[in-house]
Amino acid sequence: MEKVRVGILGASGYTGAELLRLLSLHPAADIVVLTADRHAGQLIQEVFPHLSALDLPELTRIEESDWHTCDVVYCALPHGTTQEVIAQVLDESPDTKVIDLSADFRLADVNVYAHWYGQEHKAPEIQPQAVYGLTEIYREDIAGARLVANPGCYTTTAQLPLIPLIEAGVIEADDIIIDAKSGVSGAGRAEKRNILHAEVSEGIHAYSVGEHRHAPEIEQGLSRAAGRPVTVNFTPHLMPMNRGILASCYVRLAGGADAAALRETLKDKYDVEPFVHVVPQGVSPATRDVRGSNYVLTGVFEDRLPGRAIVLSVTDNLVKGASGQAIQNMNVMLGIDETTGLSQVALFP
Amino acid sequence: MEKVRVGILGASGYTGAELLRLLSLHPAADIVVLTADRHAGQLIQEVFPHLSALDLPELTRIEESDWHTCDVVYCALPHGTTQEVIAQVLDESPDTKVIDLSADFRLADVNVYAHWYGQEHKAPEIQPQAVYGLTEIYREDIAGARLVANPGCYTTTAQLPLIPLIEAGVIEADDIIIDAKSGVSGAGRAEKRNILHAEVSEGIHAYSVGEHRHAPEIEQGLSRAAGRPVTVNFTPHLMPMNRGILASCYVRLAGGADAAALRETLKDKYDVEPFVHVVPQGVSPATRDVRGSNYVLTGVFEDRLPGRAIVLSVTDNLVKGASGQAIQNMNVMLGIDETTGLSQVALFP
Amino acid sequence: MEKVRVGILGASGYTGAELLRLLSLHPAADIVVLTADRHAGQLIQEVFPHLSALDLPELTRIEESDWHTCDVVYCALPHGTTQEVIAQVLDESPDTKVIDLSADFRLADVNVYAHWYGQEHKAPEIQPQAVYGLTEIYREDIAGARLVANPGCYTTTAQLPLIPLIEAGVIEADDIIIDAKSGVSGAGRAEKRNILHAEVSEGIHAYSVGEHRHAPEIEQGLSRAAGRPVTVNFTPHLMPMNRGILASCYVRLAGGADAAALRETLKDKYDVEPFVHVVPQGVSPATRDVRGSNYVLTGVFEDRLPGRAIVLSVTDNLVKGASGQAIQNMNVMLGIDETTGLSQVALFP
Amino acid sequence: MEKVRVGILGASGYTGAELLRLLSLHPAADIVVLTADRHAGQLIQEVFPHLSALDLPELTRIEESDWHTCDVVYCALPHGTTQEVIAQVLDESPDTKVIDLSADFRLADVNVYAHWYGQEHKAPEIQPQAVYGLTEIYREDIAGARLVANPGCYTTTAQLPLIPLIEAGVIEADDIIIDAKSGVSGAGRAEKRNILHAEVSEGIHAYSVGEHRHAPEIEQGLSRAAGRPVTVNFTPHLMPMNRGILASCYVRLAGGADAAALRETLKDKYDVEPFVHVVPQGVSPATRDVRGSNYVLTGVFEDRLPGRAIVLSVTDNLVKGASGQAIQNMNVMLGIDETTGLSQVALFP
Repeated sequence: MEKVRVGILGASGYTGAELLRLLSLHPAADIVVLTADRHAGQLIQEVFPHLSALDLPELTRIEESDWHTCDVVYCALPHGTTQEVIAQVLDESPDTKVIDLSADFRLADVNVYAHWYGQEHKAPEIQPQAVYGLTEIYREDIAGARLVANPGCYTTTAQLPLIPLIEAGVIEADDIIIDAKSGVSGAGRAEKRNILHAEVSEGIHAYSVGEHRHAPEIEQGLSRAAGRPVTVNFTPHLMPMNRGILASCYVRLAGGADAAALRETLKDKYDVEPFVHVVPQGVSPATRDVRGSNYVLTGVFEDRLPGRAIVLSVTDNLVKGASGQAIQNMNVMLGIDETTGLSQVALFP
Repeated sequence: MEKVRVGILGASGYTGAELLRLLSLHPAADIVVLTADRHAGQLIQEVFPHLSALDLPELTRIEESDWHTCDVVYCALPHGTTQEVIAQVLDESPDTKVIDLSADFRLADVNVYAHWYGQEHKAPEIQPQAVYGLTEIYREDIAGARLVANPGCYTTTAQLPLIPLIEAGVIEADDIIIDAKSGVSGAGRAEKRNILHAEVSEGIHAYSVGEHRHAPEIEQGLSRAAGRPVTVNFTPHLMPMNRGILASCYVRLAGGADAAALRETLKDKYDVEPFVHVVPQGVSPATRDVRGSNYVLTGVFEDRLPGRAIVLSVTDNLVKGASGQAIQNMNVMLGIDETTGLSQVALFP
Repeated sequence: MEKVRVGILGASGYTGAELLRLLSLHPAADIVVLTADRHAGQLIQEVFPHLSALDLPELTRIEESDWHTCDVVYCALPHGTTQEVIAQVLDESPDTKVIDLSADFRLADVNVYAHWYGQEHKAPEIQPQAVYGLTEIYREDIAGARLVANPGCYTTTAQLPLIPLIEAGVIEADDIIIDAKSGVSGAGRAEKRNILHAEVSEGIHAYSVGEHRHAPEIEQGLSRAAGRPVTVNFTPHLMPMNRGILASCYVRLAGGADAAALRETLKDKYDVEPFVHVVPQGVSPATRDVRGSNYVLTGVFEDRLPGRAIVLSVTDNLVKGASGQAIQNMNVMLGIDETTGLSQVALFP
Repeated sequence: MEKVRVGILGASGYTGAELLRLLSLHPAADIVVLTADRHAGQLIQEVFPHLSALDLPELTRIEESDWHTCDVVYCALPHGTTQEVIAQVLDESPDTKVIDLSADFRLADVNVYAHWYGQEHKAPEIQPQAVYGLTEIYREDIAGARLVANPGCYTTTAQLPLIPLIEAGVIEADDIIIDAKSGVSGAGRAEKRNILHAEVSEGIHAYSVGEHRHAPEIEQGLSRAAGRPVTVNFTPHLMPMNRGILASCYVRLAGGADAAALRETLKDKYDVEPFVHVVPQGVSPATRDVRGSNYVLTGVFEDRLPGRAIVLSVTDNLVKGASGQAIQNMNVMLGIDETTGLSQVALFP
């Protein structure tokens, strides 16, 4: 198998490290560029000792990188810093494909982006090229894309079960409550008080209530599924753990469906999928059962409230919620078998 | 101050230990009876080394205990084993008051009890005497009670904000979704696989979806507030932490109210209360801020879904959700200042 | 009881918060000054929501504070910033006593301070007044002190068992290995990568091996006990928890003693002490059994290596290892019963 | 590559699950027998949902299994139950090789086994065939073995650095103190109070002080290295985490060596090894950097005590400390490249 030459921009964050962990088991990937501006000149093991066994190129600065050497570039930079870099990569190296793990190209409407992210979009001319990389939903578009906007972790977890249910008309699109719970690695490696161990462990709380930036991203996806604008309740909570997202979705049934019909709808959609499993009736999906893996577990429960059902969905926020799905998208974009490098099962306990 | 002579049945569980921890700071309580059948003859520090500094009577068996020596008996036995014991205490010792921390007397309708707990009520003749001990709501009844059924942890956390909102008519009683999250100490100290450290830490999941026994207890309280039968969605989740409950309640507005009106309703109700604090607008209550204390923090947020609001409420499940509220109820029953022995603030971090 | 007027400098760190938590149960303390430069003008509950129930003065800047209003000032500032502030307090307000929780006055030799802390001592003229506040060892000196240097958390935990054993001649002073393990709150609330939840949880490691600043502090105490200079192995490890220190001390027996003799030595010393408990033979002291309390548990085990024994000791690093011992010292300095405000037992689970 | 037919006895424990997780990435392994007496007739995903994506044979009872179908049998049963089963396998199926993950064949002297495990050895005639499976030390013997006794987790972690140091004569064999710290998964999945989440999290303690069964196993290995009987101090501590062991070894220098010489000795031994890395001077190995991987990190530090040094070593107790090393041994026994199926790097965070 000819190797895909891979570059990673922003290798010193958790999603960068996770790309390296996963790609080290990918038989067709060869990492040729690795940037981390603040650590340029160092080896990755000085930043991430858990990667010591890997033989990787030295960390460089973005501006020193030669994109022509890369078939694929993963961009794991913070949002807001990414648009200009990607515009440059796409411009300079016509044969390079880009997968952006930041939020910078996820929202199709640059005005919505500006509203939620508090700054103007810096590459609006490129935005139309970006394909939203929720693999199981938009696989065909991804296959032909040059720029994939890799979805957020919360949004992946919630949209995967909700989109098929909306498309099938078995739930109301206008009365969806998403109570989401995430491990702290979703907040990244920045030095912030609110993610210190002493502040996070042995306690829980909701945050960004009614104003989290993943709300418009979920709404974009559900609106596309519904064929009309949809608003959702999305309430994230910070969990005292590192990895994992659970989306507990409270939905109103439609079209005469019941919980069993929802489960069948999801099974019809996902039985052919390698990474999305619909759990048996009565089983509650647990984040620990997908930890470190690219799998999604989703299940449906009856609600005691008449006319309602409960849809549960779990992912590892750093894998299917970020780096794993990015690799899945690369496989799709390059015509490689989609599960390549992603067949690790969860690490438990 | 003349000392209240206190007995504790079932001192070897977490709620029993918590009663001892809290009562050790209660200036008017003198512990005279302490039972733990499996540990009879031992000292409590052999069961709970963290209580080593306390000078307490030896653990005895229930049948050896003399209830006449107790002004108040706390019953911290598992549900199902409690009804007959309490019937006996009440019968044998006419001057003794009883506070039951189990679920055995919480449901006024013994048929509902039988349905949810899978066994017939063993003291139906006593059930009518039992006063439901949600202190801030039923204080007057508690003051005159001989038998108080201390509420469950989830139910305390959810009912305290929801009851005043229903009573004020500012939310719909028929469309309440309670996504609740609890630390693992709520499951007690029994030797069960599902609460092992390796099974609980670094992961989350929902459990007993649609069938948790606290659902009928919440419904009983909300029905009383609404003046008609109410059903709720109550979905509990197990958190990788020991203490704390967060109830995220998704409610439909009624009577033209908005989130601000809900907050005002709660402030009107609770501003005079020592243990229930309505947090300022924009503040998200965190379980770690009540850890080890009898406080409840509750807040209201606007929902992006029109016509809805989000009500958040946190407690320590072992304190306000169990032993702390039991002591609060004792204070009320005996005419002692209600905050006596309960003024510890939270332990953080 | 006439109230002691208390000031706290640096109330926005964990030891400051812990002083407030504990003093809120101290019947003789009245907090009149509370500084936190970066939060001046705020209320403490904006910094520490878990203290919301307390009625405390507004946070001010240090330079705005009037020390004459304080009988006692606790200084909970970072080391290096403290010497000049305390010099000023002692100078301006002759009747004020000071308890310094930083490391700034712990090392009697200012050259040793300069060597280990990398800067010159800024108040060498005051250093001789400072009494090292290891209460059970130096109680008499503390009673007459105007300035108490409150010991470090590791050093308290290790010295309390080791000093009596050295003084009694039952262990060799020159072959002591202290493998110490601490919760992360000992590192404070600063925004540092190495104490993020994702970096600390689910993992352990040693740090500052052979060069931790508590080594010279321990050596100072053990040297005083031995009557000659003593060097120790002190190897700290970071634990994935918030509170608690365990010092596992590996000692060589002397003077024909065995493990039982060590236990007896410790019992002779500590049986009269309210806060230091020698656990029974075969019991291993656990940090969770002192969490949130001022207690110390210590025990002695036989070693399979001939001529050796194992001494274990646990504290809560924020209580007996910092704020609790500081209050204990205040009680001693002011002639108040030493246990006042410190009788809380541990919070478990 | 022709597939190795693998059987796993005792698949329902953590080491059994870990064998399955790792073998699922082993290109030459085909799992044909899977036993779990209490779960016979079930699929593994009912016991371990994190393995749901694997296609595995149904769980059976041991007595129903046909060993002739297996080239290799892993035995992951509790100690004491294993000897007779393995005797039967070896007897019935002459071409089958066995790797035992229990302690039953680790101690060469059956009297030592009887002393420490409290029961007579049930297959003393087979014990002489057992090769102790510390791969990097006994690789040649393992290559020719039919029965490998896979080492314990603590013992692997401690012996790997200590054996070469003793063999090189750079440390004294008679003054070794091993302060070891383990995650709770080492205690298995049994329903025991002392490993409940509420009992383990937010606290640490030593256990089995002076009497842990891994002490004689370590002493056996160090005695072999020293050429004479050696006794060690081995003091295990329970950590509030799931995976990982850190052995902090306090050693006395010999033969004029210093810490640097120890580091060189380890590098000389391990530089050719794929799984054992000697970390650079000043780096402290962390368990999180080997989590989920078969790697060992070890480092050497100077001690402030003259004539001493500190040797640190970390593993994942379920991988290099159990199932990973078992697979490594299988590779050696079958002449497969030793790293096959074991090249996953650590999962962090």
